[in-house]
Amino acid sequence: MKIAVVGLGIIGGSYCKALKAHTNHYVIGINRTKSVAEHALRLGTIDEIGTPESLGDADITIVSTYPQACVDFIKENGQYIKKGSIVTDAAGIKRKICPQLTELSQKFGFVYVGSHPMAGKEKNGFDAGDENLFMGASFLITPCGADHDSVNVLAKLAIEIGFGTIKMTTPEEHDRMIAFTSQIPHVLACAYVLSPSCPNHVGFSAGSYRDVSRVANINSKLWSELFLENKEPLTEELEVLYRNILEIYKAIKNEDKETLTELLEKGHQVKQQLGE
Amino acid sequence: MKIAVVGLGIIGGSYCKALKAHTNHYVIGINRTKSVAEHALRLGTIDEIGTPESLGDADITIVSTYPQACVDFIKENGQYIKKGSIVTDAAGIKRKICPQLTELSQKFGFVYVGSHPMAGKEKNGFDAGDENLFMGASFLITPCGADHDSVNVLAKLAIEIGFGTIKMTTPEEHDRMIAFTSQIPHVLACAYVLSPSCPNHVGFSAGSYRDVSRVANINSKLWSELFLENKEPLTEELEVLYRNILEIYKAIKNEDKETLTELLEKGHQVKQQLGE
Repeated sequence: MKIAVVGLGIIGGSYCKALKAHTNHYVIGINRTKSVAEHALRLGTIDEIGTPESLGDADITIVSTYPQACVDFIKENGQYIKKGSIVTDAAGIKRKICPQLTELSQKFGFVYVGSHPMAGKEKNGFDAGDENLFMGASFLITPCGADHDSVNVLAKLAIEIGFGTIKMTTPEEHDRMIAFTSQIPHVLACAYVLSPSCPNHVGFSAGSYRDVSRVANINSKLWSELFLENKEPLTEELEVLYRNILEIYKAIKNEDKETLTELLEKGHQVKQQLGE
Repeated sequence: MKIAVVGLGIIGGSYCKALKAHTNHYVIGINRTKSVAEHALRLGTIDEIGTPESLGDADITIVSTYPQACVDFIKENGQYIKKGSIVTDAAGIKRKICPQLTELSQKFGFVYVGSHPMAGKEKNGFDAGDENLFMGASFLITPCGADHDSVNVLAKLAIEIGFGTIKMTTPEEHDRMIAFTSQIPHVLACAYVLSPSCPNHVGFSAGSYRDVSRVANINSKLWSELFLENKEPLTEELEVLYRNILEIYKAIKNEDKETLTELLEKGHQVKQQLGE
């Protein structure tokens, strides 16, 4: 197949690198900044530098830009996309994006299948991309009414480039779960390192500091957009989290050992039941 | 040297295993439950099953029990400890423990040097102990008035068994920093997994869920004691954290992208400046 990757950042770069390393598909790289695409071509991680017109050759187009930029790109260049070909995004939020892209797919005659590769790093840009970034990771698919065959083509491609789990979901379930599994840890990490104690942690910290603070090394522009476009599920999860922190806080403040032990034991039980 | 390890849980077990694997010191294991000590002897991770009377032979005694149990053990058995020998604990809190042990050292004629091995696992018990648990970890020492030579003997032993950093501190600084680096992540992890969304995370989660939730698999009895005996620094840090979460929450709720991006960028900058 001919696969076009639009946006050669860490995710788009990883798609190109994984496609070249693990498959025989032909890769067309499209990027606003030309020098990055030229660099990718020199490295052999794409076969061709494309323009929007090249989308007429692609069997699959993967748009891995910021969420709203993805919709804007398709709006502007939808007319070049090959009829009947598959288009997917890589956006970390889905309720806002999927309906717009489904509508555009009907207008321009392509098949839209939403997807979200659950992988990342605390780095940005093409060079941070990694042919093994997706190894064992979850590939979330929001079919959004796409035909079964097209969904299968995308799922099989995901397996080829290393994903370990394929999970079909709806935009609503996706956004609610991502608020919990991904966005809350990012909010927490930032809130945590803003403590005045943080710069003095060296020598006093072990694995738990490292793990909680890791994702504070955040792309603030991207994550602001992701948080705001997932406002309702995220603020709901933050309220749940706040109530749970407050319960533990009160038990400590009131020196109520019984309640405190119970609360911690509940946490322990959740992890035990999940086998984690 | 002859080294007595009192309490063969994960930390005491790791001390025994590390001492046998990486040094030639003679190890005396003392444990309330006899069968665990017998198991340790069969495995060759101790040279001798000791009783409190055996402390008369030890050049260094490491008491790795729960914090208050450590004080109680020394109160009860201090008379057996060899005069002039070194006694250390392994407690994760220091303001409450160190003054009591310093007083007991004067009463019984041993040298007390406080210490806290910054290492652990989400498992308990002797079998969870690991000869490499301390590799590269921080060894925090609260000298509490002990002579320089004794402090050095303990520091050198820590290096021998794998610790990567030796950090001298006071009980006050220790407890303030540990509230931030270790206790807050444990509170957060428990509060986080208590969300009703948690049991459904499978397939939707990646590294950030795994990292934040990891230490929720907690020893609720031990950590309740640690939290309550470090009440002031911990509740202060929890208040700081809560204010920071609230600021981010409000920015999302008010769709204030500028403030939100600024807050996340501050988090990013802290990590960048720490080179993490």
